[in-house]
Amino acid sequence: MHQPLPVEIIDITAPHDRRVDDFRDLNSSTRRPDLTVLPGGRTGRGLVVAEGVSVVARMAGSRFSPHAFLGVDKRLSRLIGAGVLAAGPAAVPFYRVDPAVMEQIVGFHLNRGVLGVAHRPAPLTVAGVIDARVRTVVVLEGVNDHENIGSIFRNAAGLGVDAVIVGGGCADPLYRRSIRVSMGHVLRVPFASSREWPQDLGLLSDAGFTLVALTPDAGAVPLTEAVTEAKTAFLVGAEGPGLAEDTMRRCDVRAAIPMSRDTDSLNVATAAAIAFYERARR
Amino acid sequence: MHQPLPVEIIDITAPHDRRVDDFRDLNSSTRRPDLTVLPGGRTGRGLVVAEGVSVVARMAGSRFSPHAFLGVDKRLSRLIGAGVLAAGPAAVPFYRVDPAVMEQIVGFHLNRGVLGVAHRPAPLTVAGVIDARVRTVVVLEGVNDHENIGSIFRNAAGLGVDAVIVGGGCADPLYRRSIRVSMGHVLRVPFASSREWPQDLGLLSDAGFTLVALTPDAGAVPLTEAVTEAKTAFLVGAEGPGLAEDTMRRCDVRAAIPMSRDTDSLNVATAAAIAFYERARR
Repeated sequence: MHQPLPVEIIDITAPHDRRVDDFRDLNSSTRRPDLTVLPGGRTGRGLVVAEGVSVVARMAGSRFSPHAFLGVDKRLSRLIGAGVLAAGPAAVPFYRVDPAVMEQIVGFHLNRGVLGVAHRPAPLTVAGVIDARVRTVVVLEGVNDHENIGSIFRNAAGLGVDAVIVGGGCADPLYRRSIRVSMGHVLRVPFASSREWPQDLGLLSDAGFTLVALTPDAGAVPLTEAVTEAKTAFLVGAEGPGLAEDTMRRCDVRAAIPMSRDTDSLNVATAAAIAFYERARR
Repeated sequence: MHQPLPVEIIDITAPHDRRVDDFRDLNSSTRRPDLTVLPGGRTGRGLVVAEGVSVVARMAGSRFSPHAFLGVDKRLSRLIGAGVLAAGPAAVPFYRVDPAVMEQIVGFHLNRGVLGVAHRPAPLTVAGVIDARVRTVVVLEGVNDHENIGSIFRNAAGLGVDAVIVGGGCADPLYRRSIRVSMGHVLRVPFASSREWPQDLGLLSDAGFTLVALTPDAGAVPLTEAVTEAKTAFLVGAEGPGLAEDTMRRCDVRAAIPMSRDTDSLNVATAAAIAFYERARR
């Protein structure tokens, strides 16, 4: 259990108060605060936004240190009651609002009722997230759907995966929807974006990981046979195209989940969960 | 491979043509054709709507026999090329439209470009879907999210589950979004809605099924130990509340997927997929 994070409670009654600008227009395609790049190529703020009591609680104890909160009194009380927040000195502002004011700020009715916001910390490196204690990682390529990214982090957290490597062509895991779908585990499971893709896979091989490519290809080894007790990196690609052939060639084994006839591949996050489960049994 | 379904190609140029009323206003909360009950309690048409080439293809060979199609020429060509449809006598109408007309009929831009529509056939019964060949079924309780329902059908089809029993408190599997998320497998995997819930579970026990309740409860048996070679019915409940205690008591075993500390349960469709996978290995 972490110490409660001290917050200074500040009531906001005017929707246009500049102090809550980091929470404004969360769904606006041109102004939303979580985008790193805005339409037309301008640099966005790239803020990290947590929503709902449980996700805000996960943010509070994470490397994504919140610099402000916005929420209704009921959610503030729950966060204080759960020992996540506490009124105190040297405090982060908690902007307390009525539901109607919150709706005007955020731009829609957010029924989770509370938000936390953090600046992006310095990114972790691939070498940094595969330290000696790490036994299982998942490596993503071309996973460009924010819900799938979020689901993969949720499954990784639940099923004992130590870190995520975000390879080429992936969506931003710190997009608001990814964080929400992950139940906040994007903020907890260490991840690094590859700077040199797919060459960075060599770092995993050098560190003693067996690279297991997940593929629906019928010629692949059944997953049960492909997973061992060795340090393991699972590689998953987007539904449809799957992993690039060049990426597959860098892997030690191609593994398939046995599927029924006349069916498509599974959703990428579901396939990953099955691999994580198979791995956790070793 | 089925025989191609004969279609009569009819060009529609006026968006208000009455012949395409079954495809009109698909997102309208008050008029959409897939609802069985409209706001205010009026009876809806409850039509079964398939969208996109692969889902329409699954509908064409299913017990949900389409009585009309609407689509752009490109998708019609793909369906003919794939041997799903063919111009022929005694034919079902295929209403061919320009993309702009299709958008006006449907009410939004549907980039899958083709729709099929069927009347609901007589529902299957629980006793009917658990015939002698059936080895594995999944039973849903309180799964009231259309995407989760669709995902469960997709996972069932891919991982060797023979039938789905829809228990109390569940959403309609034939809602358009469920069919889409299932990749059309709602139309292929036999399912029956329980009329007497949870008493219908007795039909499964009487038929020799072992009833395995999936639960995140730490006191449950690990999934690996709970799954056997016997005929198996997996019971899954909604995220959050889970299965009702009365339902759990009717089960033979409570099974849990081992989870990391400080994580929530998995998404219900993901948990089900892992159970199906564990079962398929037997």
